[in-house]
Amino acid sequence: MNAISSERVLSIQSHVVYGYVGGKAAVFPLQCLGYDVDVVNTVHFSNHAGYGRSGGTKATAAELNDVFEGMERNELMAPTRLLTGITPPCYVPSAEGLSAVAALARRLKRERPELIYLLDPVMGDAGRLYVAADVIPIYREMLPLATIIAPNWFEVETLTQVKLEDLPSLRKAFSILHDTYHVPNVIITSIPLTPWLYNALPPAIQPSSDSEYLLCIASSRVLPSSLPVVYAQCVPLLPGYFSGVGDLFSALLLAHFHSPSSPATIPNLISTSTSTSTVPHPQTPLAHAAAYALATTHHILRLTHAHAITLPAKERAPTDDEADAAEPLRKTRRMRGRELRLVQGQAAIRGEGVEVRPMGVWENFWDV
Amino acid sequence: MNAISSERVLSIQSHVVYGYVGGKAAVFPLQCLGYDVDVVNTVHFSNHAGYGRSGGTKATAAELNDVFEGMERNELMAPTRLLTGITPPCYVPSAEGLSAVAALARRLKRERPELIYLLDPVMGDAGRLYVAADVIPIYREMLPLATIIAPNWFEVETLTQVKLEDLPSLRKAFSILHDTYHVPNVIITSIPLTPWLYNALPPAIQPSSDSEYLLCIASSRVLPSSLPVVYAQCVPLLPGYFSGVGDLFSALLLAHFHSPSSPATIPNLISTSTSTSTVPHPQTPLAHAAAYALATTHHILRLTHAHAITLPAKERAPTDDEADAAEPLRKTRRMRGRELRLVQGQAAIRGEGVEVRPMGVWENFWDV
Repeated sequence: MNAISSERVLSIQSHVVYGYVGGKAAVFPLQCLGYDVDVVNTVHFSNHAGYGRSGGTKATAAELNDVFEGMERNELMAPTRLLTGITPPCYVPSAEGLSAVAALARRLKRERPELIYLLDPVMGDAGRLYVAADVIPIYREMLPLATIIAPNWFEVETLTQVKLEDLPSLRKAFSILHDTYHVPNVIITSIPLTPWLYNALPPAIQPSSDSEYLLCIASSRVLPSSLPVVYAQCVPLLPGYFSGVGDLFSALLLAHFHSPSSPATIPNLISTSTSTSTVPHPQTPLAHAAAYALATTHHILRLTHAHAITLPAKERAPTDDEADAAEPLRKTRRMRGRELRLVQGQAAIRGEGVEVRPMGVWENFWDV
Repeated sequence: MNAISSERVLSIQSHVVYGYVGGKAAVFPLQCLGYDVDVVNTVHFSNHAGYGRSGGTKATAAELNDVFEGMERNELMAPTRLLTGITPPCYVPSAEGLSAVAALARRLKRERPELIYLLDPVMGDAGRLYVAADVIPIYREMLPLATIIAPNWFEVETLTQVKLEDLPSLRKAFSILHDTYHVPNVIITSIPLTPWLYNALPPAIQPSSDSEYLLCIASSRVLPSSLPVVYAQCVPLLPGYFSGVGDLFSALLLAHFHSPSSPATIPNLISTSTSTSTVPHPQTPLAHAAAYALATTHHILRLTHAHAITLPAKERAPTDDEADAAEPLRKTRRMRGRELRLVQGQAAIRGEGVEVRPMGVWENFWDV
């Protein structure tokens, strides 16, 4: 804890009164892991958009700038890390609001080049865009400011305009993000493990069981002159949909990311039977952080799932668009029972009782 | 932790991006102690008013009501506890905003009479009112809804219109709060230990050293037919001013308050040499909670003070209104160095390494 006790994260995210998405999913874990967090709320809503209805307000670009200027006037704009991610559908501010955040990120990065900036380019999921199209070019302009970006597969496709359908297209997307947009660390948080992707994986990373899996891929350009180093891990898919998972994952990723300038501080993870190489492979800072973030996020999801299945039947009616439309509270009750169990899982967030499995190195990723 | 894992606190307080007052001082401790917290922000400011300058916005009554209605429509307005406190000067919403909160508290208390409501009637300090006068009658109307109120001595004087200058006036103020306003638990968080107060104290509660002290007095009407039971404890005064201390104390008090309907769950504190009676006295739930809240708050203050004195000289210039006026950043830097060390003290908030000293019973408080 001491090593990071002087670190401050500036978090710019949505706020919901009830439940855990955006800032509510990110701030508490960062605090548990020893960071002071400066919390800017881009919206103030009763609950997340998944409930279908909500009440509250969005901050305008002028209101956000007024807060930023208040901090700057008082010499309080002094983060060592920056986290921006704005989730989900109706929470995204107008392009104007995102531009205000982009301008701040640019200023901060110029004044303190050592700033570690995790940009979560929230734009959509599963083939559906949930922001206005004018937001996409702003995110593209922000990419070169980021130390780490954490898009899902659909956001990678949107940013790079490359459809991920085989290993060459995956290579091309990573190349664009590293080379054209100069992002040193790119993590694709979750891609369904379809047959082409399964077959492309080194055997040591392929899962052994027949369950459904998601793949997490972490690519880092460690040296400017050499190819990026790629790590990956398969994560079993839990049934049903949970909100705020990406926001929690990004916060944990940032918290566990140790600056590449001090690689000596990165403890090597203990190898397990799933380790990919017989000779211990030095972890990249990104692969190290991702292993911790994946393990903790999965632990919280299992807690949440275990809680949800103990609820009365009416609190966990299965997804059914027709039935939900006829009785709006049906959906609401399901959502409520699936809010992340962050407070109940805080010991796990601090690392107690969580088994961290190292990411596997994807040795021949770039071999054509 | 298990015992309280299904409890939710609805917290309605101010929000600052940087530092720890209002909700930023209250929410994290409540979460550390196992509560899910629904967080309503009455303002969204860059920093607390002590810095002299800030940027941001206040929520209007209509905006607050929109959030409350969003929660109610979705069956998300289901707290087991309510915490309202709005701090300090320019953060207080208009009387209209406070009325919106009052109306919600009334509705909640009617629907769930078992709700534990801690009302911090923030109005001023040290003889200075920092709210508009039209706020006072609204607070008086809210008093009968509260399970616990936590005013400072000046707020007691303002609410009761009794000047606290001797033991009879102190008795009269408590009587008004218990009898006229029907508040079962009244805690005066801090009164300077002036000679009349020192002399009125039972010897076991009088401090032994010559340092400066504040007195905390906790009075509970346990049975409707008998006199309230009064406990007290002297707390050594730390040099300088810290912001957010009252907000932290109130949150901890609420977190450690166990409902009187289940007194069996209250562990008796181990008596120390400062205990006031040779026969162990059953603690009231309020005295129990106050002992924990005082010990934790004092621990955090000592951490904060210890940190502040390690800072470079320009970060800890002594209070000097003239020098501060000439160079506004002089005050800012002092404030910044005295922000509560909540994140660094989180183990103490969870109870690790904190020695809890029981409150002393004030046996003859009501004897005329």
